Amino acid sequence: MIEIIAFDADDTLWNNEHLYHRAKVEFGQLMAGYAESQFAKDRLDEMEVHNIPYYGYGIKSFALSMIEAAADVSEGQVSGGEIREILAIVKGMLTADVEFMEGTEVTLAELSKFYDLMLITKGDLHEQDSKIERSGVAGYFRYLEIVGEKSDATYQRILGKYNLDPEGFLMVGNSLRSDILPVLRIGGQAVYIPNDQTWSHEHAGEDEIGDHEFIQLEHLHQLPKYLKRLEDENKDR
Amino acid sequence: MIEIIAFDADDTLWNNEHLYHRAKVEFGQLMAGYAESQFAKDRLDEMEVHNIPYYGYGIKSFALSMIEAAADVSEGQVSGGEIREILAIVKGMLTADVEFMEGTEVTLAELSKFYDLMLITKGDLHEQDSKIERSGVAGYFRYLEIVGEKSDATYQRILGKYNLDPEGFLMVGNSLRSDILPVLRIGGQAVYIPNDQTWSHEHAGEDEIGDHEFIQLEHLHQLPKYLKRLEDENKDR
Repeated sequence: MIEIIAFDADDTLWNNEHLYHRAKVEFGQLMAGYAESQFAKDRLDEMEVHNIPYYGYGIKSFALSMIEAAADVSEGQVSGGEIREILAIVKGMLTADVEFMEGTEVTLAELSKFYDLMLITKGDLHEQDSKIERSGVAGYFRYLEIVGEKSDATYQRILGKYNLDPEGFLMVGNSLRSDILPVLRIGGQAVYIPNDQTWSHEHAGEDEIGDHEFIQLEHLHQLPKYLKRLEDENKDR
Repeated sequence: MIEIIAFDADDTLWNNEHLYHRAKVEFGQLMAGYAESQFAKDRLDEMEVHNIPYYGYGIKSFALSMIEAAADVSEGQVSGGEIREILAIVKGMLTADVEFMEGTEVTLAELSKFYDLMLITKGDLHEQDSKIERSGVAGYFRYLEIVGEKSDATYQRILGKYNLDPEGFLMVGNSLRSDILPVLRIGGQAVYIPNDQTWSHEHAGEDEIGDHEFIQLEHLHQLPKYLKRLEDENKDR
């Protein structure tokens, strides 16, 4: 019996990755005087992954990587004006409107009648706090958890903190690596809702998936129906 | 009866502000070709406070403000090389050794025998997680809370989450604004341990302090003795 449904936020409840995509395109254009735009974007991607141990996730981390990539791609020739344009892109990302996935609000409203809902989001605390507030959906969640990394240990710590049983815990998200596999490894259940904009860093290899079983849905708004069927099947046994 | 002792981390358990002071001096030197170093540092201070609503707290936020201030102070003339020097200062801050206050470890070891300890720190999740891990003192704490802002509502939310009573809750910290006054306002107790390096943004005015009563100690290592005396007095009543 499922008791808690936990949701990832970025690219599960609302679009997020499109902000990064758009910023990367703008970065490529800004660097056009120094290098091919694809070269600039690739350099930025490398810089981002390289800097995770220093900066962690989120827009500010991305911003610092963008500035470092600009210094690199321009071979130190980047101008103060270009730096200001990068900072303007960053502030635009930080204050962008929250764009829900189709059916986010009705899905949360429906499920919160039958389950305790939890939000588990990875990234920058200030950004996530601000986005949760702007989204207006905080009230549907009994638990809000903002974490630095979504590892097996992270999920175990959260369940332990609230004395929750992994068997009654279902996680919903768009990242095999962060939302699905760690939850399955600790004995929970998971619903994978892929998003074509998911950052490549969040993909998992076939070997990591192994024998783990999880459900895949195309859209978030299919979740209540799926859970209803699941509960009915359990009842019939 | 005190049941939970919560500690602020930065500039209460370990030094933090000295990293910012040092970075500001280095920033002033780096900008020497464009402006008086005091002018550059003042510009950076203004930028930091101005950017809190966008960036929140922490080293990455400070880094972005430092880069923006560099573009401003140099009137757009800042070079890619100078930007790289700023990023090197930032990575140095992020990986600096944790410098404990005198007696931090023995104080935590002693108090954890008699009380449940909580760490409540404000700032960047990735930075704080990394610092808590590097400090090696996480094991003394039953609860770890990293928050975006330390308001009355924040403390109330934390107490609510663990079903804790404000009367049994004592907060220890160096910031009147973030550690002491909000806790007193919600009915908890507080021990103020001032630090001469506390950021001016964390100071509170006389009017905010009003009639609130709290204890002030000079050093963290005086805390166990103070609590022992307090408990003894309570017993005698």
